[in-house]
Amino acid sequence: MSTTINATNGIDLAQLVETVEAIKADANLAAFTFRARSSWRGGTHNVGEIGGFAHAGQEDESRAAPFVLEGDEPPVLLGDNSGPNAVELLLQALSFCYAVGYVANAAARGIEITRMDYEIEGDFDVRAFLGLDGGRPGFSAIRATGRVSSPNATVEQLQELCTYVQDTSPVRDCLANPVPITTRLEVI
Amino acid sequence: MSTTINATNGIDLAQLVETVEAIKADANLAAFTFRARSSWRGGTHNVGEIGGFAHAGQEDESRAAPFVLEGDEPPVLLGDNSGPNAVELLLQALSFCYAVGYVANAAARGIEITRMDYEIEGDFDVRAFLGLDGGRPGFSAIRATGRVSSPNATVEQLQELCTYVQDTSPVRDCLANPVPITTRLEVI
Repeated sequence: MSTTINATNGIDLAQLVETVEAIKADANLAAFTFRARSSWRGGTHNVGEIGGFAHAGQEDESRAAPFVLEGDEPPVLLGDNSGPNAVELLLQALSFCYAVGYVANAAARGIEITRMDYEIEGDFDVRAFLGLDGGRPGFSAIRATGRVSSPNATVEQLQELCTYVQDTSPVRDCLANPVPITTRLEVI
Repeated sequence: MSTTINATNGIDLAQLVETVEAIKADANLAAFTFRARSSWRGGTHNVGEIGGFAHAGQEDESRAAPFVLEGDEPPVLLGDNSGPNAVELLLQALSFCYAVGYVANAAARGIEITRMDYEIEGDFDVRAFLGLDGGRPGFSAIRATGRVSSPNATVEQLQELCTYVQDTSPVRDCLANPVPITTRLEVI
């Protein structure tokens, strides 16, 4: 363990450097399997749980209890607004991913961040979901706007970092490029 | 408004039919713009909000307050577990999307559902995010398992519906096929 913490933007740079060096020495340490589960509660309402995950082939034990998320649709889409809907969660995931990528990479470059907000919006046509002709089932376009403040970086540095973060963002990659998905159903 | 509600699986079939017929008559009613925003709180911790959205060019007013979501990383990824991370939210979104699609389409077919659970997992390599060679930034593979029970459908009907739901799932489409994303940054 490092005995000094250089925590630019609240990111522990010593841990970050240790992590990078450890993965360079053993690529298996880069491997994660993340998970989510859900249980249907009626209508368009589901309750989700995000808990344990595997890292380097072993279960991570850091979470005492799973995070619980509610999912539902608004009334116009047959729900009761018990929670956000699934495609809204995608947009939220992109905002979180961009923000973490931005502040962590800023820290690694010595760039202090004092504000990092994102607004994401996505255009959606419900026809394919309803079995009607017209458009794809998912978003036809997603637009993200970040708002950043830094006391020690130029506009050019901050814009270049925005480009770097896009190129390395896990969520952006999953939306911008195809992910292989296998789906199976067990009838109980 | 319909005066009778046939609510198989808690889905208001009269509203579903009305919605489909209205969209057939005016495709503009199929158009939504969904949104999410986030504000960085330090380190890998962000607080997100999902509130209003636009439907057919008008703001939906059904939500009295936005849904608030916490996003963070586990300690092994430099966070404090204040919430799930961004890629875990993607998996949660897929589970919610599959479940809503399944029970709604089942209702439309007269199939009663008494249980609908999903477990999703995704394989992830953190090297690209860290700027190291090796793999893509996002999931290399996602696996979804549904568990369904129905008192009035055959296994074949339930499996066929699983295939239909995959083909029309908005979240699966966004992960399996490329979505155009534009990202811009405002320096404040």
